[in-house]
Amino acid sequence: MTEVTSFEGRRPPPDGFLSGLEERFGDQLQTGQAIREQHGSSESHFVKMVPDAVVFAQDKQDVIDLVRFCAAANVPIVPFGAGTSIEGNAAAPFGGVSLDMSRMNRIIAVNAADFDCVVQPGVRREELNQHLRDQGLFFPIDPGANATIGGMASTRASGTNAVRYGTMKDAVLGLEVVTPQGEVIRTARRARKSAAGYDLTRLYVGSEGTLGIITEINLRLHAIPEAISSAVCSFATLEGAVETVVQSIYCSVPLARVEILDALQMRAVNRWSKLDYPEAPTLFFEFHGTRAHVAEQVATVEALASANGGGDFAWSDKPEERSRLWRARHEAYYAAINLRQGAVGWATDVCVPMSRLAECILETQKDLSQASVPATILGHVGDGNFHVVFSLDPDAPDELVEVEAINRRLVERALAMDGTCTGEHGIGLGKQDWLVAELGNAVEQMRLIKRAFDPQNLLNPGKIFTL
Amino acid sequence: MTEVTSFEGRRPPPDGFLSGLEERFGDQLQTGQAIREQHGSSESHFVKMVPDAVVFAQDKQDVIDLVRFCAAANVPIVPFGAGTSIEGNAAAPFGGVSLDMSRMNRIIAVNAADFDCVVQPGVRREELNQHLRDQGLFFPIDPGANATIGGMASTRASGTNAVRYGTMKDAVLGLEVVTPQGEVIRTARRARKSAAGYDLTRLYVGSEGTLGIITEINLRLHAIPEAISSAVCSFATLEGAVETVVQSIYCSVPLARVEILDALQMRAVNRWSKLDYPEAPTLFFEFHGTRAHVAEQVATVEALASANGGGDFAWSDKPEERSRLWRARHEAYYAAINLRQGAVGWATDVCVPMSRLAECILETQKDLSQASVPATILGHVGDGNFHVVFSLDPDAPDELVEVEAINRRLVERALAMDGTCTGEHGIGLGKQDWLVAELGNAVEQMRLIKRAFDPQNLLNPGKIFTL
Repeated sequence: MTEVTSFEGRRPPPDGFLSGLEERFGDQLQTGQAIREQHGSSESHFVKMVPDAVVFAQDKQDVIDLVRFCAAANVPIVPFGAGTSIEGNAAAPFGGVSLDMSRMNRIIAVNAADFDCVVQPGVRREELNQHLRDQGLFFPIDPGANATIGGMASTRASGTNAVRYGTMKDAVLGLEVVTPQGEVIRTARRARKSAAGYDLTRLYVGSEGTLGIITEINLRLHAIPEAISSAVCSFATLEGAVETVVQSIYCSVPLARVEILDALQMRAVNRWSKLDYPEAPTLFFEFHGTRAHVAEQVATVEALASANGGGDFAWSDKPEERSRLWRARHEAYYAAINLRQGAVGWATDVCVPMSRLAECILETQKDLSQASVPATILGHVGDGNFHVVFSLDPDAPDELVEVEAINRRLVERALAMDGTCTGEHGIGLGKQDWLVAELGNAVEQMRLIKRAFDPQNLLNPGKIFTL
Repeated sequence: MTEVTSFEGRRPPPDGFLSGLEERFGDQLQTGQAIREQHGSSESHFVKMVPDAVVFAQDKQDVIDLVRFCAAANVPIVPFGAGTSIEGNAAAPFGGVSLDMSRMNRIIAVNAADFDCVVQPGVRREELNQHLRDQGLFFPIDPGANATIGGMASTRASGTNAVRYGTMKDAVLGLEVVTPQGEVIRTARRARKSAAGYDLTRLYVGSEGTLGIITEINLRLHAIPEAISSAVCSFATLEGAVETVVQSIYCSVPLARVEILDALQMRAVNRWSKLDYPEAPTLFFEFHGTRAHVAEQVATVEALASANGGGDFAWSDKPEERSRLWRARHEAYYAAINLRQGAVGWATDVCVPMSRLAECILETQKDLSQASVPATILGHVGDGNFHVVFSLDPDAPDELVEVEAINRRLVERALAMDGTCTGEHGIGLGKQDWLVAELGNAVEQMRLIKRAFDPQNLLNPGKIFTL
């Protein structure tokens, strides 16, 4: 994959811009080729779209000063967290400054009695959970990658725990944001709920850095449950696995995690993580609660699984076993890509109403069975959200064309089932046409907000939609 | 309380406007004094602010046509549900048309396998739950009043179940909205989660009819639990009651409802509902789950209550007993107002972090102990949200002045504790200064959205903020 240097509409920085930046930011400014390329790449199939410079913010004042400096020069700013997004969300198609937030990584406060904390956007979720553990608290949103909290808020991330604990829209209590004019606002106080005016918090969550730059995040936390139990169960059919989940929810079992992996994905996991699970449609479960309540949940789900063609539950109650199990699940994406040497990944991301999930996966599998590119399926089955992971040869442009066509059919299938083109990855560069297909003229209301907040189109231009 | 007919900025309809409306809407248009007054009043202390006409919408096309007609004539539209809001949210300070949505009350679809339904905005929550019961489902948001779903969405309502099931921001999956330009948009598909662009759903929820008119609502539902158990427990001290709730949440007890009532409120409840509970600080609980899990929750909470100075639990397991208990709680507002004959109510609505709740209530009680107006306290203690209900003599303007001063001190106290001026009632007319005190220059971002969406200031003008 090659660097794209001349993108239509690229806005080259004016003369003297970089030297002015250097005067203010010193060695927080980096302009080397390698670091710029790293900030213009991502964990996906997108070509590199490289910024003109990278600025590492240390504090809020840096962000304010950079925004004002870039506004005066009309140079775009692209906020950057850990670079784990996969729809080109942090690429720099118009150049400009990549604003790296990773050094703003302080945990500012943990309010244990209120089940919340305040963090800077560069804190990563694994660090946060290590910090919280001693206080009996945890932050439940888990997209797999060790993303930054700011990046997760910006893309409305979710992942394996969402079935029980919701997504970033539920986890964020309030934000501090620097506007495109360099003003600092706070979207909410620290109360657990409020009816005070428009919900700016939820507006910034999922806005992919196009409306403001998040400089502080107030997060909701949860008490670590007394008992946690994980299990893996394989099924004769994919429908049996999905039906087990639907029936569990009907029985009000508060599943903490429930993940589906298809047979090929299980083969990839076995190879990558050196395991020997059956290579069949499989559910990974996690149960949270008191000891007695977990035992009751497990009994209910085991009975339902058995009635739906499930095999025995392989249990992991000890922390290290559970970690091993979930590490295997989290590495499933890399496992799938590595079905071929030197491949790059492409993950699709549809989400459909639960009643259509089995049908949607089965039709997709039928489509994949004709494909020349290896492709696995895994997903957050309790939410109706699943991914196809393609393992692409970067030097075979035909494969990209083929996969684009499969993805088009997949998204059309999901939209026809009243689903969404993106359950959790966001729109970025990759889903813009599908956003319009999904929400039609509602996208015009989004454009009205963008134009009102950022008339210069300064922040992450070209993402979500073109103006 | 008298009718306010000349409000600064009132926009009288132009000549021929009403006859044009009549031509289109026939007897769906009402201009009688009584019906206009009813649509300009509310269940609170606000003076009447009466619209020039009331239009009863029967379907979406009525809404589109009315919006276009009013836009052409520059006449305000104030959406109206059941009239149960209490911050003047549906009053017509600038006159115009009150758009009564109560006849748009069809339950369009119940998607049992997906745990969701689609309703028109005039459906009331009690009707909806009656309709759902046979399918083993329920809609959990319960603000007490039998409000319309559209009104509840517009004010981001919550109430007694929010501690477990969240607020309207969590309950609404998607909306159909008519914009101020008369366009119809849909904010989301029916998937349980999505990362597709800006979260327009959450933007309209809580916008109090100022950005668009909701014509259809897709709601998240829950399975009716196998077991439901309710209990009442009185405490020696208010701190003991609050501490019991905090510790229960720490023990991960998924309280379905937990309400606090102070001693005077219990006296009012006993008088109004002919009950004989101890007149002391009291918690009302509800537990949901399997039989075994409810029993376990109850045992945990009973032990915590006992350690915190709580008395015996008075149990209500049978549906009719539970209904009686919760009817008493729901009528607590009316019970409080009726501590004096002919009084009108004023309910405050702060919400603070849990760690500050006991302190906030106790300081407020101290303040109330000096007041000449009867005032009770009740609240959704699991969220940190509580109300003072004043029982005001409508013919004694001094009382209003006194209560305004108490409310000012209460809101300042809550804001100083990083809380909000409104947990669930919204801003309406009554909390506009406090919105600015709470969120400062973030309110300017709200104004940007309002101006971008509704440059004519057509929809519910004068609410949340002035432009």
